[in-house]
Amino acid sequence: MTVVAWPFLKGEGTGNDFVVIPDLDGSRVLTERLVSAICDRRFGIGADGVLRVVPTALEPDAADPGTAQFFMDYRNSDGSIAQMCGNGARVVARFLVSEGLVQPGALQLATRGGTRTCQVEDSGQVTVDMGPVRTGDDVSVRIGSREWAASAVFVPNPHAVAFVDDLIDAGDLLNPPDVVPATVFPDGVNVEFVTGGDGRISMRVFERGVGETLSCGTGACAAAWAAMRRDGVELPATYQVDVPGGTVAVTVRTDGHILLTGPAVLLARGELDADWVAAHA
Amino acid sequence: MTVVAWPFLKGEGTGNDFVVIPDLDGSRVLTERLVSAICDRRFGIGADGVLRVVPTALEPDAADPGTAQFFMDYRNSDGSIAQMCGNGARVVARFLVSEGLVQPGALQLATRGGTRTCQVEDSGQVTVDMGPVRTGDDVSVRIGSREWAASAVFVPNPHAVAFVDDLIDAGDLLNPPDVVPATVFPDGVNVEFVTGGDGRISMRVFERGVGETLSCGTGACAAAWAAMRRDGVELPATYQVDVPGGTVAVTVRTDGHILLTGPAVLLARGELDADWVAAHA
Repeated sequence: MTVVAWPFLKGEGTGNDFVVIPDLDGSRVLTERLVSAICDRRFGIGADGVLRVVPTALEPDAADPGTAQFFMDYRNSDGSIAQMCGNGARVVARFLVSEGLVQPGALQLATRGGTRTCQVEDSGQVTVDMGPVRTGDDVSVRIGSREWAASAVFVPNPHAVAFVDDLIDAGDLLNPPDVVPATVFPDGVNVEFVTGGDGRISMRVFERGVGETLSCGTGACAAAWAAMRRDGVELPATYQVDVPGGTVAVTVRTDGHILLTGPAVLLARGELDADWVAAHA
Repeated sequence: MTVVAWPFLKGEGTGNDFVVIPDLDGSRVLTERLVSAICDRRFGIGADGVLRVVPTALEPDAADPGTAQFFMDYRNSDGSIAQMCGNGARVVARFLVSEGLVQPGALQLATRGGTRTCQVEDSGQVTVDMGPVRTGDDVSVRIGSREWAASAVFVPNPHAVAFVDDLIDAGDLLNPPDVVPATVFPDGVNVEFVTGGDGRISMRVFERGVGETLSCGTGACAAAWAAMRRDGVELPATYQVDVPGGTVAVTVRTDGHILLTGPAVLLARGELDADWVAAHA
């Protein structure tokens, strides 16, 4: 057996960090075990997830890629498969442009959640068209004896957006907040706590199955969308969203599409040791 | 200004992880800010510390290196300078041998805590001569209403070793245990909770200024030394020490020197982006 090192890059968007695995010939097999090993923050590189980048023509999961040349195979840090990741899409778009694999400007990126249009700016900021959102019934978010009215927003993943007086009202967020009625979110829900308005909001987010995180791209979209509706702003509109890991901008177009703009940084590149990969495959 | 990428490796020993920065021409300037950025687990590579490897002839801090060709410039993840790190020394020794920078076999490695003899085995295990230990007065370790008799051991950094019935007796270890009398440890103390004996012990460790960790090389030495003394074993003797991040072996020679043997893994190599380094220098 020929043992070959695996090229990788380390990237992050507002503190949501990823190991990018370029797979231009479709030969990289990501097992759950290998993804977990790569993402392990003591025994591996460490990341929130892995982004395998593969030509759509070589990827069976890219069922309907349209004109997208590349597919983003996103895996959570536990090795499970995920549909889409807004912060990850920015990092992949920046990778494709900086490597010269696609032309600068607008590019199509295929994901399991559908094909997304991305725009890489010279500044390093990347805009992703997250598609339209869908709203659900009003819900309540509860932590202990506290309760807030909240909006159900699907981006299309599920969010409950609660406006609070102060972000510290959510407490230490070590446990998932209760969201009622639970029937609105049969697959669980991400919860955003939001302050501010009129062009700039701040938020904290509790991601289902993860805990509080530094940033959540779809959560920022949900929060900005709910804040614009509350503020009664005319579309198109743009809100800055401060998250613990930085700042993103969310634009809602007149057609309801949401554009998420934020930083995407590629800070290192290298190779995973071939024997190490083989031992963890 | 010429912008040059910085080569690095990611390595770990029993889950204590490091970014190795080869600096063969002595040109790498590690600021506190840059070390913190590299070690940041979301915005950087992520590690417990940075190990800059530089020829002793080019390093002013290698004041009395003896025959050591290389100096280990160890920095904690907050950028502060540290004397010595047993797990880090194993990783550096493995790096020097695998890169062909030194001959396989015994090698001398200069550190701020003195020059250490290291032996890299074909298996990837590395043995470091940690020097002799010094014992201090008996002390007590307290958590809440629980209290254990403990041994003060200096390797030469300070440790309090408490034998417990079960490792869960130490609780969640989110806060530093109290060690009394505090006058025995004017610079603070690392605390080990230990079970077992007669050749194999298990331990948890609370490192001063850090918290509970997966592994502590000097802590394993202190724990094994205290267990051997309690068990009344004849020297030389070897104890296996199970830590949360793996297993190391500790040998106490008849001359009192302690040899720490454990794994050292180099799992990836690459380059830090030059612009990123410049932005964080």
